[in-house]
Amino acid sequence: MSAMRNEVKRLHEQARAAKYASRQLATLGTEVKNRALLNVALALEERKAEILAANKLDCELNKSAGLSVEMLGRLELSSDGFSGMVAGVRNVAALPDPIGQVEDVRLLDNGLQIAKRCVPLGVIASIYEARPEVTVDIPSLCIKSGNAAFLRGGKEAVNCNKILAAIVREALAEEGVPVDAVQLVESTDRALVGEMLKMKEEIDLIVPRGGGSLITYVAENATMPAITGGRGVNHIYVDFGADQEMAVDIIYNAKTQKPAVCNAVDGILVHRSVAELVLPSIGAALAKDDVDMRCDPDSLRILMAEGIKGIRAAAEEDWGYEFCALIAGIRIVDDMDEALRHIDRYGSGHSEAIITNDYAASQRFLNEVDAAAVFVNASTRFNDGGQFGLGAEIGVSTDKFHARGPMGLREITSYKWIVLGNGQIRP
Amino acid sequence: MSAMRNEVKRLHEQARAAKYASRQLATLGTEVKNRALLNVALALEERKAEILAANKLDCELNKSAGLSVEMLGRLELSSDGFSGMVAGVRNVAALPDPIGQVEDVRLLDNGLQIAKRCVPLGVIASIYEARPEVTVDIPSLCIKSGNAAFLRGGKEAVNCNKILAAIVREALAEEGVPVDAVQLVESTDRALVGEMLKMKEEIDLIVPRGGGSLITYVAENATMPAITGGRGVNHIYVDFGADQEMAVDIIYNAKTQKPAVCNAVDGILVHRSVAELVLPSIGAALAKDDVDMRCDPDSLRILMAEGIKGIRAAAEEDWGYEFCALIAGIRIVDDMDEALRHIDRYGSGHSEAIITNDYAASQRFLNEVDAAAVFVNASTRFNDGGQFGLGAEIGVSTDKFHARGPMGLREITSYKWIVLGNGQIRP
Repeated sequence: MSAMRNEVKRLHEQARAAKYASRQLATLGTEVKNRALLNVALALEERKAEILAANKLDCELNKSAGLSVEMLGRLELSSDGFSGMVAGVRNVAALPDPIGQVEDVRLLDNGLQIAKRCVPLGVIASIYEARPEVTVDIPSLCIKSGNAAFLRGGKEAVNCNKILAAIVREALAEEGVPVDAVQLVESTDRALVGEMLKMKEEIDLIVPRGGGSLITYVAENATMPAITGGRGVNHIYVDFGADQEMAVDIIYNAKTQKPAVCNAVDGILVHRSVAELVLPSIGAALAKDDVDMRCDPDSLRILMAEGIKGIRAAAEEDWGYEFCALIAGIRIVDDMDEALRHIDRYGSGHSEAIITNDYAASQRFLNEVDAAAVFVNASTRFNDGGQFGLGAEIGVSTDKFHARGPMGLREITSYKWIVLGNGQIRP
Repeated sequence: MSAMRNEVKRLHEQARAAKYASRQLATLGTEVKNRALLNVALALEERKAEILAANKLDCELNKSAGLSVEMLGRLELSSDGFSGMVAGVRNVAALPDPIGQVEDVRLLDNGLQIAKRCVPLGVIASIYEARPEVTVDIPSLCIKSGNAAFLRGGKEAVNCNKILAAIVREALAEEGVPVDAVQLVESTDRALVGEMLKMKEEIDLIVPRGGGSLITYVAENATMPAITGGRGVNHIYVDFGADQEMAVDIIYNAKTQKPAVCNAVDGILVHRSVAELVLPSIGAALAKDDVDMRCDPDSLRILMAEGIKGIRAAAEEDWGYEFCALIAGIRIVDDMDEALRHIDRYGSGHSEAIITNDYAASQRFLNEVDAAAVFVNASTRFNDGGQFGLGAEIGVSTDKFHARGPMGLREITSYKWIVLGNGQIRP
C-alpha cells in the first residue's frame, strides 16, 4: 500500500517534470531539436549490443512466463527492427518543423495584425504494450514537435524500455534538450494507468498503442483528449464499372500485403452485375495466399462453382470485424445504395475504397462515405502518414475531432492567436 | 419512473433522427442552406409577436418563482435582442461555406492525388441555460456547416425555446433542409443531461453554454468531445517600455467596455519601474466607472497616495478569479519574469496582453505566454470570432485540442482524406 503510494507520488513528480520541460521545449529552435535527434540515433547505434541484450532478456523472461507467440513477435527487436527504429529517428530529424509556422495571417480594418502560430500541445503520454520501438518512436515525434513525452510501456519490455529511455534522455540532454522532456514510468503496476488517465492537468494528449481492450479502456476513462483510432474495419466495393484486373490487384494487395495492420481490407463488396465475372478471379487470387473467405450465400455459390479453396458461409459477426489476419468477408450487393449501407453499418470510419471507371459512382462514393480516408481505384493500404507524405505518424485517428486519419507532426500541435496592435480598443 | 423511461427513449429517438438528418445535411449545397437560413430569419420576423409573448410568459413565471435578477436579464428577449438574433441568422447565411473546401492537395510520386476535404462533424449538441437566443444561434451555425443541432435549453426558457425551435424547423424544411436536423429536447428533467453526455454514438460534439458549474459538469462527464472553454482569467501586463496613455486606454477598455464577458481583463500587472508614473492614471480611469480595485501592497500604497477611490487590499483568491464584473486585481511586478510567472499560475489560457514599445519584450511575451490569444498593444476584448473575422462563433475554446480561441464555422467541421488513384497498390 505504501509502495503504491510512493509509485503514485513518483508518477506525479515525473508528470510535473515533463510539464515543466515542455515549457522550455516549446521555445527551442529547430536546429537544436534536430541535432539532439541525430545524437539519439548515434547513441542508439553505439549502444546497440546493450539494447539487444536487454531485449533478449525480456524475450526469454516472457517466453518462460508463457507469453503468446504473437506478443513475443512484437516484443522481439530484430537487427532489422533496430535499424528501422534508428532510421525512423533520422527521418523525423529531416522532416520540416511545424512549430512557429504561421497561417491565416490577416490585417484587419482596424489595423490589428492577426495570425495563428503553430505551438506544441505540451505533454503527450503514451500507454503501450510489448513493442519496445515505441520508446524511441514517440519521443522522436514529440521532441521534433516541441512536446514532452511521458511513456508507460508494457511490463513485457521493461528491461529494454529502461535502457532505451535512458539513452534517449542522455543523448537529448547532451545537445541542450531538457532531460525531463522524456519520462518513462518504470513501475508497470496496472493501477498507475488508471491514475495517468486522471492527470489532465499534466497530460495534454494520450496515445494508447496496443490491443483493442487497451484502446477501449483509454477511450472510456481518459479525462484528457485521446487518440483512440487504429481500429480499421475497411471495405473495398467493386462497382459495376470496375476494371476487373485492377479490382483483383487492389483487393489482393489490400488483403495480403500486410494483413495484421489497421488499413488492410476486411470486407469485399461486389456489385451483382459484375459478380459472376470478377469474383472467380478475386477468389483465385486470395486462395493463392490461403485467405479464409467468409461469403454471403450468393458469393459462396459463385466461388464454389469455380472450386475456389478456403471459402465458407459468413456468420453475422464476420461483418464489422477487424480480422488483422488472412481472412476476408465477401458479399454481393444489388447496387451502390446497398454497398453504402453496409459500409455505414459495419465500417469503422478508417479506410474505404471503390473500384470503378464510372465517374458518377466515384463522386457519389467520395461524397457519401464517412471515413478518415476514402479511395477511388487504390489500395486501402495507403492510409498511412508515410504514404501520404506526412513523414512519420503517431497513429491513425478515426475520430473527427482535431486530426482525422494519419497523425504526423503537424497533427500533434496546437496554435495560438498572435495579435499585434498599436493601441486598438474595442468600440 | 415510467415517465422518465419514456423521456429517455424520446431523447434517443431524437438523437437518432438528428444523426440520420446529418447524413443528408452533409451533402446539401450551399445555396439550399443559405436559402433555408434566410427563410428562418423571415419566419422569425413574421412570428415576432408570438415569440416575444412566449418569452414574456417565461419571464413572468420565473419572476414569481424567484429567479435571480441576473438570470432574468439573460432570459429576457428585448426587441433589440430579437433583432440581433435575426440579424445573426442573416449574417451566418452570408458567411462562406466551409464544407467541401479542399486543402493540402498533393500529387504523390506514385500518381495518387490526395487532398483533405472539409466535412461536417455530424451532430452538435448544446446544453444551455436561460438565454433563448441560443435556440436560434446554434442551429444557424450548425446548418451552415452541415451539422445537425441537438438542443437542450434551460427550464426557465421552455416556452420561448419551444416556439423558436418549431419555427426554425419549419422554415428549414420549407427550403429542403431535413426537418430533423434541428432537435429540441422538450423535457427539462436534469437526469436527461447526464443521459445526453453518454450518447457518444449519436453526438459528435457538445457545447455547454452557461455558468461555470454547468461547464465543469459537462467537461467531467461528457464521453464525446466538448468545448469547455469560456473561462477567461485574463491579464494585461504594462511593461517598462509602455506608452502611458495607451496603457490607460487599453486597460480601461478591457475592463469596462463589457465586464461580464470572458475576454474582459481581470488582472493588471505593472512593471515596477513605471508603476509610480502610470498607476495613478490607470486608477483614476477605472475609478471613473467605479471599478473595485483589489491591490497588492505596493500598488495600494501608490493609489492611496493619489486618493483614488474604490481601492482595497487584494486577497489571495482575487488572483486567478474571473470577475465578470467591474472588479480588477492590480499588482506590481519586478520584471517580465514575474509577470510571466503570475500569468502562468493564475491565467486560464484565454486572452493575455502586453503593453510595450520594447521589441524584445513584445517578442518574448508572444513566445512564452501560453494562451488562446496573445496581444501586443491591443485590448483583450478583441478575442472574439466576429472581431477576428471568422464571422459568428459557437464559443471560445481554451483547450489546445482541435480549435483554440474563437470557434467559427470552420472550427465545427472535420475533414476526410480523398485519394484518387488509377490502380495503385502498395509495394
